Amino acid sequence: MRDAYLDQLDSVIEDLVTLSTMVQQAVSRATHALLTADAHIAAQVVDDDARIDALRTAVEERAFDILARQQPVATDLRTLVAATRMVSDLERMGDLSVHVAKVAQLRMPAYAVPAEIEPTMRRMAEVAIHMVGQATEVIADRDLDAARRLEQDDEEMDELRRRSFRLLLGDSWTHGVEPAIDVALLGRYYERIGDHAVSLGRRVVYLVTGEVPQRL
Amino acid sequence: MRDAYLDQLDSVIEDLVTLSTMVQQAVSRATHALLTADAHIAAQVVDDDARIDALRTAVEERAFDILARQQPVATDLRTLVAATRMVSDLERMGDLSVHVAKVAQLRMPAYAVPAEIEPTMRRMAEVAIHMVGQATEVIADRDLDAARRLEQDDEEMDELRRRSFRLLLGDSWTHGVEPAIDVALLGRYYERIGDHAVSLGRRVVYLVTGEVPQRL
Repeated sequence: MRDAYLDQLDSVIEDLVTLSTMVQQAVSRATHALLTADAHIAAQVVDDDARIDALRTAVEERAFDILARQQPVATDLRTLVAATRMVSDLERMGDLSVHVAKVAQLRMPAYAVPAEIEPTMRRMAEVAIHMVGQATEVIADRDLDAARRLEQDDEEMDELRRRSFRLLLGDSWTHGVEPAIDVALLGRYYERIGDHAVSLGRRVVYLVTGEVPQRL
Repeated sequence: MRDAYLDQLDSVIEDLVTLSTMVQQAVSRATHALLTADAHIAAQVVDDDARIDALRTAVEERAFDILARQQPVATDLRTLVAATRMVSDLERMGDLSVHVAKVAQLRMPAYAVPAEIEPTMRRMAEVAIHMVGQATEVIADRDLDAARRLEQDDEEMDELRRRSFRLLLGDSWTHGVEPAIDVALLGRYYERIGDHAVSLGRRVVYLVTGEVPQRL
């Protein structure tokens, strides 16, 4: 009985890792769709979000089921409650990837991101994708160093966001209002993906150390 | 012993209601600061967010403590796990109010919202504030009708968002890029406040009916 219970707990963690990997693919594909105006990939991101949502629901129900049936205590209890919240972060990151894909779709066959701001936007996407990968490692290996590195990545994201605003508001911006709004919202979506990755990292830090990070 | 336990559960719900009321005040004040360029109120919203964060942490820890000590089952277990997630929604709504206040601060002493789009933005804010109020009632009274009305309010919010984009992208928009970005992001913040209110409503529906709404 105890072994079956431990297997159940392990399977929740495994599914969180799977979900996080699916989210990383979604962010990566949405970015590809955005930067290459690829209609096929954009549609795939939108369609595949249902798979992320389904796995999220399944993990959540299983975590809840173990809570109800096994009455875990201490670390196991904390892990299961954290899992029900980590799936929310992950689902939301999937939704944000869909938002990126939809901005791309709205402007096709044109590119939503003007050339002079493309490197900044590409770097924001790279940082976001890297952060989701780090979060996956943190969940899989309870790697506290990776969790700390996530905070540094988040600082780079903030700096990129500021740079993008300088470009949008500078004299050399000749593209008018619509692409400016697209870029501002895209920046927000990538920033939020990064925030959720940081939040995932902090939840694992809390599980491992018992210390509540300043903000979850 | 059982009575003390029920008191603890009740106090968690009461604190959720208090938190929700604080959030409604934050959204309301941030909007006032935005639409009247009131520096004092804007600063108050930013400062008071620490109180929302502190109550969130306190409620979360208490819910967790009851989970760990009392090993509740069935509805009580669901209520406590839901509470740990509802505080996240509420804290996030507080953060979004701070974002609104900060946009207002950035543009002071000028108004961030140009006159011709002010009625639309004001209505978005009204809908958001109303939705937080509805969510508070749903939590306090487990009012499922109010939870359903939240979904309708969310449709009005979507329509207002579309209207704001038509105004920003129409020929009559003469304010250029910066106010357009402000308005687009402000619209996003109010929309997200509404989304979190819907999410709170759905969590209560799940607690009362046991039916998982399509998206939590």
